[in-house]
Amino acid sequence: MMAEVLAKRVVEKMYSHDVFSQWLGIERLEVKPGYCSLRMKIRKEMLNGFSIAHGGITYSFADSALAFASNSHGRKSVSVETSISHIHPLKEGDVIMAVAEEISCSDKIGIYTITITNQDNKKVALFKGTVYRTSKEWEI
Amino acid sequence: MMAEVLAKRVVEKMYSHDVFSQWLGIERLEVKPGYCSLRMKIRKEMLNGFSIAHGGITYSFADSALAFASNSHGRKSVSVETSISHIHPLKEGDVIMAVAEEISCSDKIGIYTITITNQDNKKVALFKGTVYRTSKEWEI
Amino acid sequence: MMAEVLAKRVVEKMYSHDVFSQWLGIERLEVKPGYCSLRMKIRKEMLNGFSIAHGGITYSFADSALAFASNSHGRKSVSVETSISHIHPLKEGDVIMAVAEEISCSDKIGIYTITITNQDNKKVALFKGTVYRTSKEWEI
Amino acid sequence: MMAEVLAKRVVEKMYSHDVFSQWLGIERLEVKPGYCSLRMKIRKEMLNGFSIAHGGITYSFADSALAFASNSHGRKSVSVETSISHIHPLKEGDVIMAVAEEISCSDKIGIYTITITNQDNKKVALFKGTVYRTSKEWEI
Repeated sequence: MMAEVLAKRVVEKMYSHDVFSQWLGIERLEVKPGYCSLRMKIRKEMLNGFSIAHGGITYSFADSALAFASNSHGRKSVSVETSISHIHPLKEGDVIMAVAEEISCSDKIGIYTITITNQDNKKVALFKGTVYRTSKEWEI
Repeated sequence: MMAEVLAKRVVEKMYSHDVFSQWLGIERLEVKPGYCSLRMKIRKEMLNGFSIAHGGITYSFADSALAFASNSHGRKSVSVETSISHIHPLKEGDVIMAVAEEISCSDKIGIYTITITNQDNKKVALFKGTVYRTSKEWEI
Repeated sequence: MMAEVLAKRVVEKMYSHDVFSQWLGIERLEVKPGYCSLRMKIRKEMLNGFSIAHGGITYSFADSALAFASNSHGRKSVSVETSISHIHPLKEGDVIMAVAEEISCSDKIGIYTITITNQDNKKVALFKGTVYRTSKEWEI
Repeated sequence: MMAEVLAKRVVEKMYSHDVFSQWLGIERLEVKPGYCSLRMKIRKEMLNGFSIAHGGITYSFADSALAFASNSHGRKSVSVETSISHIHPLKEGDVIMAVAEEISCSDKIGIYTITITNQDNKKVALFKGTVYRTSKEWEI
């Protein structure tokens, strides 16, 4: 199977079982090997005590991007360490986009950065994630 | 106001407006200045494509603990950088606990670790968070 | 003073007192407000028990880039949280380059990524740093 | 070989080849499986442009502790992601201690925190490190 087709099928399968990503309302814009871009809208139930999006919402969005991008090669990959810098607060109605970039992908370890921007193309968060690439393949 | 009373009131106020922490079903076990312990149950809608809790769920739980512990001194504090290591997967029905420890608290910067354990007292995640302490006080 | 001139003078002053950056043999390639690029050669005394550069060498190189880039605006800035992913090992004789990019710079907090590459333009490490921007100006 | 003896021998072998840890003047206080404590003195050549220890010095000290603690089980382990929070500045003559704690150790991934304190038992830095555990054993 071509790498591009495999990437799309793996992410389709992951997303179809990923109840929390569905609750978040994550849309897939583009999926390629080692890459994905996603979109999401901030809803009222995502806000914290400061009336801005809970830090966990932005993290969850980025973490889904990490999962999709790192599994897209067809090998089951699990997050081992992630970090996020919260740069700009998000309000209800904001629409955010995540772009995952593969920094490095060796046999066992993959490293990704995910940049999150809002509807004005302003950076709202920067996420870095390290995954362990298991030896199990996705059955597609 | 005594520091213990202030801590409880600030966190009570934060929690009462924190719609996402309420969606998560976070319970407050104990709140003290610079400290909190929280409990939460993993529900079906929190699972990802591997049928385990989405990484964002554990992060969100820890991030709420960070917000509560760091604001408990009465100064509004905002997260600037956080990281989480996912150690052990969580299934539906698991009950997890977060304990926030204040590593350092200077005039402007606070550093916290949050350890998350499951019902068997096994570590499931380790979170580290850095906050910027603004000059604004919580009005209680 | 023009921002470009200020940036160069601040970093010149920092470097002239920075004994450890001098021990490392760090060369400044370019300094601009919020930006710097640096070069360094891996020497025998920088190696660890695996006969590759000690992780602290790459970190130190990146941390100097963070200090120079974040102080270049003229405000004294101190590192509060940094992380580094080690991607590719370095041997004696390798020549590495660091490029600091300013992701965000608010009144109090600055966030930077520093990408380190070797002489073949291969990524060897990715560093992310958060600084607290004090209210003290550099006296130049 | 008993685990305690193996741990000491592996770290002895690592240290004897680790030229940079020797330059730092790192002393081993205690080595056990998954654990080590180290001591080091801040010298003039370790200072930066603020006349305090360069952030890379504290990081390097912690990174050596990570390497020793994670390799002490006898399997060659390499750092994949590390972070450090700088809490308190260090001056020439300060004597610091690192204590490595094993948070988690699975077949492939190990997670450690290293706490650094000064001669007054004040926390000066908090380090978290993730290693990949290769399948190669140390030959002792």
